[in-house]
Amino acid sequence: MIRVALDAMGADAGVEPVVEGACRLSLESGPIHVTLVGDPRQIERALGARRADRSRLAVVAADGAVRMTDKPVEALDRMPGCSVLTAARLVRDGQADALVSAGNTGAVILAAARSFARIPGIRRVALAAVYPTALRHGPRRDPFALMLDVGATLGCTAEELVGFAVMGSAYSRVVSQIERPRVALLSNGSEPQKGTPAVVAAHAALARLPSIEFVGNVEGVDIPRGTVDVVVCDGFVGNIVLKMLEGVAAVALDLARKAYERRLLWRLGLGMLSRGLRQLQTLTDWKQYGGAPIVGFDHVVIKAHGRSNAQAIRNALKVAAKAVERGLEQQIRTALEPLGLAEQ
Amino acid sequence: MIRVALDAMGADAGVEPVVEGACRLSLESGPIHVTLVGDPRQIERALGARRADRSRLAVVAADGAVRMTDKPVEALDRMPGCSVLTAARLVRDGQADALVSAGNTGAVILAAARSFARIPGIRRVALAAVYPTALRHGPRRDPFALMLDVGATLGCTAEELVGFAVMGSAYSRVVSQIERPRVALLSNGSEPQKGTPAVVAAHAALARLPSIEFVGNVEGVDIPRGTVDVVVCDGFVGNIVLKMLEGVAAVALDLARKAYERRLLWRLGLGMLSRGLRQLQTLTDWKQYGGAPIVGFDHVVIKAHGRSNAQAIRNALKVAAKAVERGLEQQIRTALEPLGLAEQ
Repeated sequence: MIRVALDAMGADAGVEPVVEGACRLSLESGPIHVTLVGDPRQIERALGARRADRSRLAVVAADGAVRMTDKPVEALDRMPGCSVLTAARLVRDGQADALVSAGNTGAVILAAARSFARIPGIRRVALAAVYPTALRHGPRRDPFALMLDVGATLGCTAEELVGFAVMGSAYSRVVSQIERPRVALLSNGSEPQKGTPAVVAAHAALARLPSIEFVGNVEGVDIPRGTVDVVVCDGFVGNIVLKMLEGVAAVALDLARKAYERRLLWRLGLGMLSRGLRQLQTLTDWKQYGGAPIVGFDHVVIKAHGRSNAQAIRNALKVAAKAVERGLEQQIRTALEPLGLAEQ
Repeated sequence: MIRVALDAMGADAGVEPVVEGACRLSLESGPIHVTLVGDPRQIERALGARRADRSRLAVVAADGAVRMTDKPVEALDRMPGCSVLTAARLVRDGQADALVSAGNTGAVILAAARSFARIPGIRRVALAAVYPTALRHGPRRDPFALMLDVGATLGCTAEELVGFAVMGSAYSRVVSQIERPRVALLSNGSEPQKGTPAVVAAHAALARLPSIEFVGNVEGVDIPRGTVDVVVCDGFVGNIVLKMLEGVAAVALDLARKAYERRLLWRLGLGMLSRGLRQLQTLTDWKQYGGAPIVGFDHVVIKAHGRSNAQAIRNALKVAAKAVERGLEQQIRTALEPLGLAEQ
């Protein structure tokens, strides 16, 4: 049985979609047990209204919850018994194997940093994001690729970028089941000497690393295309790129809606173009589906989107269980060995 | 009369579209004289086949031309009499007021660097790009914004970013006729303390600079939306962002083409959707339209796209003339004055 500690309090829409996601998963086959952490009255009320296999669900009380607008350090200092810290402690103390939260991203990372250790050889943890691509990836033909870091690491060293590449490769192998994920550095040119000094040095180090399938540098044009399975960059660039994808999707959706409303509705009815519009909507909502891994800790941490619906929470729980079951941490440790970083 | 030196040799399709663009412009009203620089036989042959006002065209012979695949330093060293260097020298020596080239970007920048001085207070020149946005800008409601640097500046200092902001603002005012262009720094958050140390320091400096309308930081999502008129970033980020826009446009065009081919052609004929497709094509080809300014030199330099057609060359010539006529260089100098940078 894989046990996931689920912060029940952080999502934008409150406990309802979070509890509903856990209930759905409890009725499916698969060895996953979920501990819902938060206000027990709210959780029990939501549980009472739903079908669920209660033998695969538990509730642990927590005192307080971090809101999206809270400053992480201040909020965790003020509420040492809050849901995300309590859930992280369950994992630290061996009562659960992975942490899932749809709450404030900074608070999730900070709660993990205060509760877990980093994997030896990993200097900085990374927030990864799954994003939609034109090309498909892996045995399941997923129309998604992984990018990291999209968090807050500024001015990464070459060694940190190498760590991101190793962790992204391991995550892609474990969760997307791509045997040798194709990993690339994002740069301003494909040649090995293109990029910042850190990118150039990371390129040289990765080219000598047998444990991952490093294919060199990719450029901006390769991101929407999806040329590789894992795109590695520092958090400043990753944040800009990810938010730009959101902006492009929103603009495309808006244009399509206008075209649809103005001219097409009365000509074509609700036929194929409404299907196309729904596809586009899905694309713009991709962040809801599944979760964003926070990699580098000695425990699995999955950040679900704040706007997650029940299905997205269920998916995030399944992703967390899969990462535990297939040994994400050990895969990262093994891939780091040739670098001798673990000895530091 | 504003005199433009036009490198006739560098475009992907040879002298034909370049000469054609100059001929078209010569037949329009407006005080622009163009000197075509390159192989006189090729130029005269192309001129002979076309209608033009020869009183507003001249030809200056040059020996050799840089190709797109050439390495700029090596090519300019090997061919000191090549077309782009000869055209730049005409400007340096006062025989022309601006340089326009559709050739190898690196060679254009290098030829300018070898022939011109930088404006006092500008440490590094920048390659700017006009890109399509959802929102419209300025009195002409242009669906475009300006981004700089998209060239090769890595690891810019705060002072360099401030210089880009000043130059972008002046260019937008002069060419797009936006009286107080809204200028922003691209960062990983809108708060003043977000970003790399250089971005944070540039934010503080720009907030104190009265000569430009600095609105703070924008994020990736604001790029396709077009929240501001001028987006400032270092060349590494700018290159990735610009190429990503190309990639997104290519993917969107590909998706639209497939949808069109597969299902819509026989249902709708060549009606409104083919118009939509053409619009999208235009969007993906935006780089062809007009030119990318290289700002920071004491002379106007416009880089037209290598795939420019005659209309794009005509537009680049007009943009160059407008920048000269409205005193781009003096506008930059004036905006830099409050910083006291000109004294360095």
